[in-house]
Amino acid sequence: MTGQRQVVEIVAIGNELLIGDVLDTNTHWLCQQITGLGGVVRRAALVRDDLQAVGQEVLGALARRSGVVFTTGGLGPTDDDMTLRALAQALGRPLALDGEALAQIESRYYQLWEAGLVAEAALTPERRKMAVLPRGAQPLANPVGGAPGVLLEQEGSAIVCLPGVPEELKAIFQQTLPPLLQAWLGGACYREEVVRVDCRDESALAPVVDAVAARHPRVYVKSRAKAYGAAAYLQVTLSARGPGLADVQQALQAARADLEDRLREAGFPPLDLGQDALGRRP
Amino acid sequence: MTGQRQVVEIVAIGNELLIGDVLDTNTHWLCQQITGLGGVVRRAALVRDDLQAVGQEVLGALARRSGVVFTTGGLGPTDDDMTLRALAQALGRPLALDGEALAQIESRYYQLWEAGLVAEAALTPERRKMAVLPRGAQPLANPVGGAPGVLLEQEGSAIVCLPGVPEELKAIFQQTLPPLLQAWLGGACYREEVVRVDCRDESALAPVVDAVAARHPRVYVKSRAKAYGAAAYLQVTLSARGPGLADVQQALQAARADLEDRLREAGFPPLDLGQDALGRRP
Repeated sequence: MTGQRQVVEIVAIGNELLIGDVLDTNTHWLCQQITGLGGVVRRAALVRDDLQAVGQEVLGALARRSGVVFTTGGLGPTDDDMTLRALAQALGRPLALDGEALAQIESRYYQLWEAGLVAEAALTPERRKMAVLPRGAQPLANPVGGAPGVLLEQEGSAIVCLPGVPEELKAIFQQTLPPLLQAWLGGACYREEVVRVDCRDESALAPVVDAVAARHPRVYVKSRAKAYGAAAYLQVTLSARGPGLADVQQALQAARADLEDRLREAGFPPLDLGQDALGRRP
Repeated sequence: MTGQRQVVEIVAIGNELLIGDVLDTNTHWLCQQITGLGGVVRRAALVRDDLQAVGQEVLGALARRSGVVFTTGGLGPTDDDMTLRALAQALGRPLALDGEALAQIESRYYQLWEAGLVAEAALTPERRKMAVLPRGAQPLANPVGGAPGVLLEQEGSAIVCLPGVPEELKAIFQQTLPPLLQAWLGGACYREEVVRVDCRDESALAPVVDAVAARHPRVYVKSRAKAYGAAAYLQVTLSARGPGLADVQQALQAARADLEDRLREAGFPPLDLGQDALGRRP
């Protein structure tokens, strides 16, 4: 039931990520959002500000028939912001000034100038650069910053270029993209359940986890070590996706009940630690 | 002067990263460490617990002639911990029980059992699984957890498999790997400088940044927007690497002086915000 459109890849662009100067939180945030909307993020990559590297990464995602490819970063006014140049080169689409993008940028800088946040309202060469898009691209309104996002359709896939500034990325995703996201990802849903176990030894839990995973092939079962205040415990996450919510929940509940029974049998009764930060039942 | 050995790629493995359940801090930490030791992280990827996906990612890094490929995650006792199986398949090396790895695991679980942290000291099948390595692999002692790291040499490149639990990854990197890291990455050094500017408008700063970058080709110059308390400002990072520290520092200082002069000329005097969290001069 999963259309290819629902398979997503992310390409995060910027030397600052790979020299360890900036922790890439954008990819994590996008993974949460896309998963919650019913999409599947198959893969993410972090690449340097390099025309070849960016182009090859996006071409690779298209070759793997990803439905949507998100890029983050490299849309700003400086020369090393080169995402659109890289895409133009990789896809063989000439760059040209886009009237709609230019109008968005002009109006944005006029607002910022009125608010006293920038020194001039004029469309300087650096501001015009952000309106130079690969042929066929469509600007995506940026409600909080200068550079618009950019949408390209290529070989049945969508390429969505978002700015690297987290507030701008989030604003475009949450305010401009929802109709497109619904069309691309909608129709599937995703749920997860978490079971915590008072045991520090993942090797002791492994036979239970593997047996439950084998008996519930629709449910993905994963254990990992966690710290909770001073105590250490193991956490087992059960997750499932599918077209119908009732169906997904039923599969999850069956796997959870099975897991809890087997854990008790093995001498590891599930812990009750209250709701976690995401409001999930423990 | 950069040997190919100094070019590094990272492959982070785990569905939990791509469903947005866990923020991948390991890649960021490794990027900081490797850059500080004189290496260049060219690219990082996040992939799912999938034999094909893991294998293809590592083969891609080898085909790009990366000197060192780090993998993180997938070394534990459960069936979905499949990094070593994926490497065995991709590299055509059969899996076999490794005596040295088994001895490390046995001694580790004996210690944990003595400390009362696990219920039994015996080498259960799940614990033995962590000692099943691709042919020719070498275990890397894990001072704080059950699963050893794993080192493979392949076609002149090193593949280093680290556990996904951050404490275990850090302990192997900092306690077991230093002699190897020195041999692979040593002989180059990396330094950076940060200049802050009281300006919210990256497009106004872009001509200055681009001109300084063009005049100092050895120095990488990058601007980005930052928040500082309630205020917003722009930050320009200058960084350089090379075989000699004096040389690197001289190139950086020349670019910094040039940048500060041009910023003052353009009406954006550099800010003094004191040392930042990393102790770098502002």
